[in-house]
Amino acid sequence: MDRLENFEYYRRQMNERIDEIDHLGIKRFFNLDTTAYEDGALDAKTKELLGLVASMVLRCNDCIDYHILQCVDAGWTDAELSEAFNVALVVGGSIVIPHLRHAVETLDICRTHDKS
Amino acid sequence: MDRLENFEYYRRQMNERIDEIDHLGIKRFFNLDTTAYEDGALDAKTKELLGLVASMVLRCNDCIDYHILQCVDAGWTDAELSEAFNVALVVGGSIVIPHLRHAVETLDICRTHDKS
Amino acid sequence: MDRLENFEYYRRQMNERIDEIDHLGIKRFFNLDTTAYEDGALDAKTKELLGLVASMVLRCNDCIDYHILQCVDAGWTDAELSEAFNVALVVGGSIVIPHLRHAVETLDICRTHDKS
Amino acid sequence: MDRLENFEYYRRQMNERIDEIDHLGIKRFFNLDTTAYEDGALDAKTKELLGLVASMVLRCNDCIDYHILQCVDAGWTDAELSEAFNVALVVGGSIVIPHLRHAVETLDICRTHDKS
Amino acid sequence: MDRLENFEYYRRQMNERIDEIDHLGIKRFFNLDTTAYEDGALDAKTKELLGLVASMVLRCNDCIDYHILQCVDAGWTDAELSEAFNVALVVGGSIVIPHLRHAVETLDICRTHDKS
Amino acid sequence: MDRLENFEYYRRQMNERIDEIDHLGIKRFFNLDTTAYEDGALDAKTKELLGLVASMVLRCNDCIDYHILQCVDAGWTDAELSEAFNVALVVGGSIVIPHLRHAVETLDICRTHDKS
Repeated sequence: MDRLENFEYYRRQMNERIDEIDHLGIKRFFNLDTTAYEDGALDAKTKELLGLVASMVLRCNDCIDYHILQCVDAGWTDAELSEAFNVALVVGGSIVIPHLRHAVETLDICRTHDKS
Repeated sequence: MDRLENFEYYRRQMNERIDEIDHLGIKRFFNLDTTAYEDGALDAKTKELLGLVASMVLRCNDCIDYHILQCVDAGWTDAELSEAFNVALVVGGSIVIPHLRHAVETLDICRTHDKS
Repeated sequence: MDRLENFEYYRRQMNERIDEIDHLGIKRFFNLDTTAYEDGALDAKTKELLGLVASMVLRCNDCIDYHILQCVDAGWTDAELSEAFNVALVVGGSIVIPHLRHAVETLDICRTHDKS
Repeated sequence: MDRLENFEYYRRQMNERIDEIDHLGIKRFFNLDTTAYEDGALDAKTKELLGLVASMVLRCNDCIDYHILQCVDAGWTDAELSEAFNVALVVGGSIVIPHLRHAVETLDICRTHDKS
Repeated sequence: MDRLENFEYYRRQMNERIDEIDHLGIKRFFNLDTTAYEDGALDAKTKELLGLVASMVLRCNDCIDYHILQCVDAGWTDAELSEAFNVALVVGGSIVIPHLRHAVETLDICRTHDKS
Repeated sequence: MDRLENFEYYRRQMNERIDEIDHLGIKRFFNLDTTAYEDGALDAKTKELLGLVASMVLRCNDCIDYHILQCVDAGWTDAELSEAFNVALVVGGSIVIPHLRHAVETLDICRTHDKS
């Protein structure tokens, strides 16, 4: 497993564990989180890009990985994602650079998966 | 002047003052900031929405006001902006709520300006 | 109206305005937010103190005002609240000090309301 | 050593190294940090829960691990900790989710240590 | 009173009020905070500049005002302060711009006080 | 390779990869970032210390590693760096402690490299 597959495995496993805890508030939050990215007045594709930029300026690598996977699935091209990276970089500053490196690496891994 | 007009006046006035300081790095940063929201692989309209959500999760009222003005100019509807607000709220949590109030109020002021 | 009454008036007014927007996700988020502070495995009183400290380290004055009002209603004493302020100060550092000033002032206003 | 034992080992080792540096300000800060969680107008048990929620909304895994260990020692149950997790999640938003996964995993490791 | 004098008045008044609360941890924190900027292996002048940049990237206007006052007293020139502003802007991104406006305005007010 | 050499290798490799993407805005941002730390009205040595403290209060280990390397090259002594660490700790609070541990460890690795 590469690091992205490891992340997906861990994410799935821990989400199941959190589901087992069976806390109504936490479960509802997870539902709200899923619903927030579904088609509505804005389409799901645009919302995933919003989620990606929010994750970058808040500097959360796991969130970046999750939204890059979703953005690739939604059909965003590399050129479009680079533009979103640039907005995040300008808004968030050089402190975002380590997360930009992470995002670019994650995107490269995604594209390799797609080819194989 | 209402609070949005006050903000625009102050913003313009201080940006001129910062321009007078004539620091090359700061001037280039302001240029980069402007360029980041221009049409490219992503269109300007989408980029403004990215800027709005980034401003909301980073909880900056002045940045929110600026991007709401830009989003309204770019043609985003209230229904679409509410969806972006919701993404920001879910990503950033209840700590975003005071900024959601501010954003909704700013949007209402914008729509009033448009009508008059 | 003093600044705390102004805040409560504005908060109520804007929450109604947000409710009018009638976005399902946003409405559910507000419900989750209310429910999170109700009696459960932890009592409401303890949860309000958690909300206060979270608001202080995240440096949100409106959130601080809201939770101070709730904490006073829940029966926390000044001595206990000072201890919570201290935890927030140590965790969040001197950048929290302006918000500590705000919190202490808000608490003083609350106690004046109680007396009158 | 599992990851929690590794963390405790590294934490102890580096705290000793920082102590060797013998900077008066840093030493006093570490003392203040310890004292902030001792019994006072609020009991130590409540303060540890405040520290945990503050660590979660500020999204610091090492701080989360430290406070979970303290909260378990102080006698907080899983049901009570889940409630604190929920407050942190609602205040801090979905950006807290990776840290919620970490917290739940840490708590599971703690409970396994207790049994063995 | 201009806004800087108002800030200084409020700051002094609330610091006295916090002192009255007489919480040992809080008092010690305030002492640590004062001591951190005194001459040592680094001189006080350099430390104030560190405090200013830290305040800007953490986006706290009151902290910025305080450190600008200290930096001006310590003898930093406008050209040097602009360089520090630039570092803060590059590290923290465009989200720092509203605080840069505030910092430049505060510095202008300070220089006016010096002349009068 | 120790962890600092790994970081430098990864940093260089990913910066080249980002350069390949050839996004004008991102390239210009990287240039601005480099230029911000060059001699000007403030000397490069002072600016690196500003960068270090900004990185610590924003809690970014990769940024801390980068600026510690630069600060050591610029000639800052351990005693001076400890003073900067202390400012960061007081401004940012105990949430900075895990990053202080990281910074001290990185500095120790740097000094070992210098000796060998």
